[in-house]
Amino acid sequence: MNPTTGHAAAAVPPGSARPAAPPAPTGLAVVGAGYWGPNLVRNAQATPALRLEWLCDLDEERARAVLGGYTTVRVTGSFEAVLNDPAVGAVAVATPAATHFDLVRAALEAGKHVLVEKPLTPSSGEAAKLVALAERSGLVLMCDHTYCYTPAVRKIRELVRGGEIGEVQFVDSVRINLGLVQPDVDVLWDLAPHDLSILDFVLPPDARPVAVSAHGSDPIDAGRSCVAYLSIWLSTGALAHAHVNWLSPTKIRTTVIGGSRRTIVWDDLNPSQRVSVHDRGVDLAYAGSLGREERREALISYRVGDVLVPALPEQEALRGVMAEFAAAIAAGRPALTDGRAGLRVVRLLEAATRSAAAGGARETVDIGENE
Amino acid sequence: MNPTTGHAAAAVPPGSARPAAPPAPTGLAVVGAGYWGPNLVRNAQATPALRLEWLCDLDEERARAVLGGYTTVRVTGSFEAVLNDPAVGAVAVATPAATHFDLVRAALEAGKHVLVEKPLTPSSGEAAKLVALAERSGLVLMCDHTYCYTPAVRKIRELVRGGEIGEVQFVDSVRINLGLVQPDVDVLWDLAPHDLSILDFVLPPDARPVAVSAHGSDPIDAGRSCVAYLSIWLSTGALAHAHVNWLSPTKIRTTVIGGSRRTIVWDDLNPSQRVSVHDRGVDLAYAGSLGREERREALISYRVGDVLVPALPEQEALRGVMAEFAAAIAAGRPALTDGRAGLRVVRLLEAATRSAAAGGARETVDIGENE
Amino acid sequence: MNPTTGHAAAAVPPGSARPAAPPAPTGLAVVGAGYWGPNLVRNAQATPALRLEWLCDLDEERARAVLGGYTTVRVTGSFEAVLNDPAVGAVAVATPAATHFDLVRAALEAGKHVLVEKPLTPSSGEAAKLVALAERSGLVLMCDHTYCYTPAVRKIRELVRGGEIGEVQFVDSVRINLGLVQPDVDVLWDLAPHDLSILDFVLPPDARPVAVSAHGSDPIDAGRSCVAYLSIWLSTGALAHAHVNWLSPTKIRTTVIGGSRRTIVWDDLNPSQRVSVHDRGVDLAYAGSLGREERREALISYRVGDVLVPALPEQEALRGVMAEFAAAIAAGRPALTDGRAGLRVVRLLEAATRSAAAGGARETVDIGENE
Amino acid sequence: MNPTTGHAAAAVPPGSARPAAPPAPTGLAVVGAGYWGPNLVRNAQATPALRLEWLCDLDEERARAVLGGYTTVRVTGSFEAVLNDPAVGAVAVATPAATHFDLVRAALEAGKHVLVEKPLTPSSGEAAKLVALAERSGLVLMCDHTYCYTPAVRKIRELVRGGEIGEVQFVDSVRINLGLVQPDVDVLWDLAPHDLSILDFVLPPDARPVAVSAHGSDPIDAGRSCVAYLSIWLSTGALAHAHVNWLSPTKIRTTVIGGSRRTIVWDDLNPSQRVSVHDRGVDLAYAGSLGREERREALISYRVGDVLVPALPEQEALRGVMAEFAAAIAAGRPALTDGRAGLRVVRLLEAATRSAAAGGARETVDIGENE
Repeated sequence: MNPTTGHAAAAVPPGSARPAAPPAPTGLAVVGAGYWGPNLVRNAQATPALRLEWLCDLDEERARAVLGGYTTVRVTGSFEAVLNDPAVGAVAVATPAATHFDLVRAALEAGKHVLVEKPLTPSSGEAAKLVALAERSGLVLMCDHTYCYTPAVRKIRELVRGGEIGEVQFVDSVRINLGLVQPDVDVLWDLAPHDLSILDFVLPPDARPVAVSAHGSDPIDAGRSCVAYLSIWLSTGALAHAHVNWLSPTKIRTTVIGGSRRTIVWDDLNPSQRVSVHDRGVDLAYAGSLGREERREALISYRVGDVLVPALPEQEALRGVMAEFAAAIAAGRPALTDGRAGLRVVRLLEAATRSAAAGGARETVDIGENE
Repeated sequence: MNPTTGHAAAAVPPGSARPAAPPAPTGLAVVGAGYWGPNLVRNAQATPALRLEWLCDLDEERARAVLGGYTTVRVTGSFEAVLNDPAVGAVAVATPAATHFDLVRAALEAGKHVLVEKPLTPSSGEAAKLVALAERSGLVLMCDHTYCYTPAVRKIRELVRGGEIGEVQFVDSVRINLGLVQPDVDVLWDLAPHDLSILDFVLPPDARPVAVSAHGSDPIDAGRSCVAYLSIWLSTGALAHAHVNWLSPTKIRTTVIGGSRRTIVWDDLNPSQRVSVHDRGVDLAYAGSLGREERREALISYRVGDVLVPALPEQEALRGVMAEFAAAIAAGRPALTDGRAGLRVVRLLEAATRSAAAGGARETVDIGENE
Repeated sequence: MNPTTGHAAAAVPPGSARPAAPPAPTGLAVVGAGYWGPNLVRNAQATPALRLEWLCDLDEERARAVLGGYTTVRVTGSFEAVLNDPAVGAVAVATPAATHFDLVRAALEAGKHVLVEKPLTPSSGEAAKLVALAERSGLVLMCDHTYCYTPAVRKIRELVRGGEIGEVQFVDSVRINLGLVQPDVDVLWDLAPHDLSILDFVLPPDARPVAVSAHGSDPIDAGRSCVAYLSIWLSTGALAHAHVNWLSPTKIRTTVIGGSRRTIVWDDLNPSQRVSVHDRGVDLAYAGSLGREERREALISYRVGDVLVPALPEQEALRGVMAEFAAAIAAGRPALTDGRAGLRVVRLLEAATRSAAAGGARETVDIGENE
Repeated sequence: MNPTTGHAAAAVPPGSARPAAPPAPTGLAVVGAGYWGPNLVRNAQATPALRLEWLCDLDEERARAVLGGYTTVRVTGSFEAVLNDPAVGAVAVATPAATHFDLVRAALEAGKHVLVEKPLTPSSGEAAKLVALAERSGLVLMCDHTYCYTPAVRKIRELVRGGEIGEVQFVDSVRINLGLVQPDVDVLWDLAPHDLSILDFVLPPDARPVAVSAHGSDPIDAGRSCVAYLSIWLSTGALAHAHVNWLSPTKIRTTVIGGSRRTIVWDDLNPSQRVSVHDRGVDLAYAGSLGREERREALISYRVGDVLVPALPEQEALRGVMAEFAAAIAAGRPALTDGRAGLRVVRLLEAATRSAAAGGARETVDIGENE
């Protein structure tokens, strides 16, 4: 961690004998008062380890409207002013993706920790530069992969990585709704980062995406795909798939993770039963001592077992994002969803774009190490 | 219609002056007492225009068990005996797909009308021969595309073809469940015929499938795909997609047909609301007088409208299949889901198999004329 | 068991040395070819321990239509002929309730075992006479409390009586639908027998109904209640409640059984999750060593725990009814839902009718011993 | 309207010629920083026609925590200080019910408009005094019957009062959940005010509650009913019913309003389909020209028709409450859910309490005029 950045952790002198006093909160500026910014503002204010100093937007009027008429938080249209404020130790960037590279680089060069919306950048080359810059500077670069901080996804990660479901056999994710056609990105870049970042978060490190195939469709002639299907082959041979769609009148957000022992169903729109663990599956009868060819002839039988619905706390994901950002800063450690995770997601999105342009051809991808 | 086949319609002499007397029912033999045969037996018995004469299965014991202990229907293990019985005017074939070609050909050559389970045959070349043979012989060759005879799919056809939803923009179909891993076919050939035959049935004639791309996965090492994704490009440019899966612990049977004016959601597992018509969609604001490039810049806005759930009768689909089979025989006309429809489905399945073998490459397909 | 009745068990001579031969099936006549009769006919035919001999209805045409054109079962309009047939050892009565007493009495007097639709009779005095007659004659008198033979209710009985949920604290049952307004009975007598017989079946013997209060309403001026609410006080102090309704456009069949440790939710219309066991409840914190008054002041806290959905077989309830009827006959023992259970239900219905007539006044009821 | 109260409307001089300038917002103090207070604080801040001046709570620390660390709103523990502040024109009371009478009376006597949580007071005598006091003083006394300001209930009111569903035949409401056992009120007083205020709001003025019957149960020995059933007879003869329950592990909030032409189903937990209008019902066939007795014999038939799901905006109800409070103040008119509505609800709750104490006896109630 760079001792010159003035972030909160550094403010506590080494060897300090006052363990009871909490560290001073890290001063934060939120940049971007559009769709997502207000959520960052609200959750930052509710996080004791952060101190919201600024809301920055070129449109100061919009920023003022987001804050409302009862606030002590300051508004500015100048990103430079934010970076020059020594009270600011960290910046949360919620601007259009095309602006991420310049803003994040400037913030890192100014010694600020950075939380950035997905996707990290529209290009993996730029994303890699930001990752390297942050690591060189000893600064936290965190991607706001929000879903990874929901109680549901945390639980799923625990179940998958803990071996509860056995080997992952398939993953199927559907994220469809009547959505806003984005002016700058297609539906893959808009919605699939959720699915890809969740996959990155919950799969074991040895199940890495190695190739993708994507098909997109623009039936309303919007100039970019509004419906897309993405197949992702994992290094284990399993197939993951995501369906993202801006045009569906019914809203579905469901992910099924099939394992050799159990299957997880995550229905994010069912508050009373978001995650269920199904003790059902397919067995190859008498398959224990059989060779491969023999197994294929063996009779397949079915276990139908109990379903367990684990109790989950109700908790806003973004609160967890803010807490993790502050904790990573305080501990001088990478965030759970760090820049490298963001870079892996961008590499997959780029490969998907290449595949879609080539009519769905399988595109090999080297995302680097998982974690 | 071949006057020598002895089917019911031909039994009424031309010019007959007895309009009140219903025609004698067509004598029927069901061949195959396995998974689906019992349903054919039950529904044939409930169809006044048919007279069930035989249940034929190599395993006569199984056939007797299917009929139960209170029946007057005869059992035989000899398909030849069935074909030689002049009381039999029609045959319903519910045996494994690999046997369809020989059985159907023999039946047609014996002058019997044929109802056959999906897929028509495992090869389009054989399927085409059967279609030609039936047409030459003036016999009804009908495919049991069961879903097309549900009140839901009939309603959807009416809505789509009647112009209610505007132009079809996308189709997404999910048919997943914990299923029996078939010994002879993969999940595409087992389940996708449902989706493909429904598409064939409901889409307007000018929206023909022109290419497919498929990915399959066999995560349980069963020797054939158990999870598959199938993309289908239509001649209109729209994209249809089907997800079929034998390994899902949750059962889903949902098809969404997005149109330029309305969107249909068919949830076959929701008896109180199988079909809903959503008056929602995406508009390009001010797009009326704009050129193509301009439209892409135009602001996209959203209509959120009412949803209508049309009342549908509860009616077993197979009852409708039997009624249509008998009616086609009586009228000497092709069945709604005739051999040509079955051939189109087989051509798509073959193309999907080629695509999956080629890693998902786009395969052009010429299915011939729709209808 | 009356050795003169000619039923199946008696047909095996005592001391017979042929244990491998199954007993000859009991000859059965179904009486009544109306709404429910066809279901009895179908399930009797599928029960090896029964041999369906007759379908008896005053309207022989209707009976013939129920059997269809492929049957070996005989039709008769004469109940006397049925009773005089020595091949008939048992009778299943599915006629209007008002005819039950005469038909069941005649059958018992003729030495036939009897299965009878709910309610046993419209009057508890008559019901008691039938119970006494059957017991005197050593004949099985069984009530077709169909739901008790569903896998769901069997499981619930096991959970409740096995102590899994702790003490029963409340029961709430909703059984509403767009229903046929019955010509002869109100909605309480039509639908509440289901709820009351299920309660009778699943509650432990020491939790007996001791009083009821009922309100009915006839908003369509049909001449009898079409909407009714029934409160039932148990001997343990707990309150059970049933809402029955013929006028609801949405169909609901849900019963919640709240226990001191767990709560059971039975949603009969959710095939993938009919029964769920909720490890949630209300605790009185620190209440262990407190007296009654102190407990009321103690802080109440909440456990939110996991939910378990036990796997249940799919099995038609009426198949289980038939099997139980045959087994009780064979073993010469009372059926699980015997005449006494039917009598208890009728006593509760009578009390409910009195209460509704008295504006909902609490009516004490002595149903006799549970079991 | 009392010209001395200094509220916003009075601040605009009569005959003012500046119609474009919006009136100055009314200064508001929220009293009570417990469970509901934070929601009032948040929504008041988002309402342009209000100006939040104070959050008042005896526990100033709690009040400060509610406001958070970035606010300009002041905290006080002194209700007197609030009443003495001339900048305060209105007070929103969210304290325990037992304190409502004293707080509301003092506020009205100080010339402040009042918004008060349900129930208005625990006694109808006190409630009537507050109503009279407010009317004498020309001040707005509004009850926070929150649900009445949801888009769903507004739509239902429009449908019911507009004649869309015909005559109201029955109402059934279920409001159950795992809830906090309240220290001061039973489940009827805690939850049934929602159902009663909604009934009051949506039913036509000529369908007035005239009698109630209630049963409560305290199975966890909490010292007050945790499960309760409430029957309400309307002046039209129709029966309404509410089930309220703190002990249910499944959360249900559903109200069915059956009409002679259509039936409304409101499922508040189904965001994609909160309100559906069912064109189904029960007809008396050939009943047109028949007398009463004849109608009872007439054949009853069933219409199964379409279901319409009207599009509803997503909008926080409390935002609507605040807007209505401000609008009533500005216009010098009673609020939609005024003190009289609150008084009617309290009269019904008192009658329900009397009935439950008398074992469910029917209690006649005179709630005064609806509206």
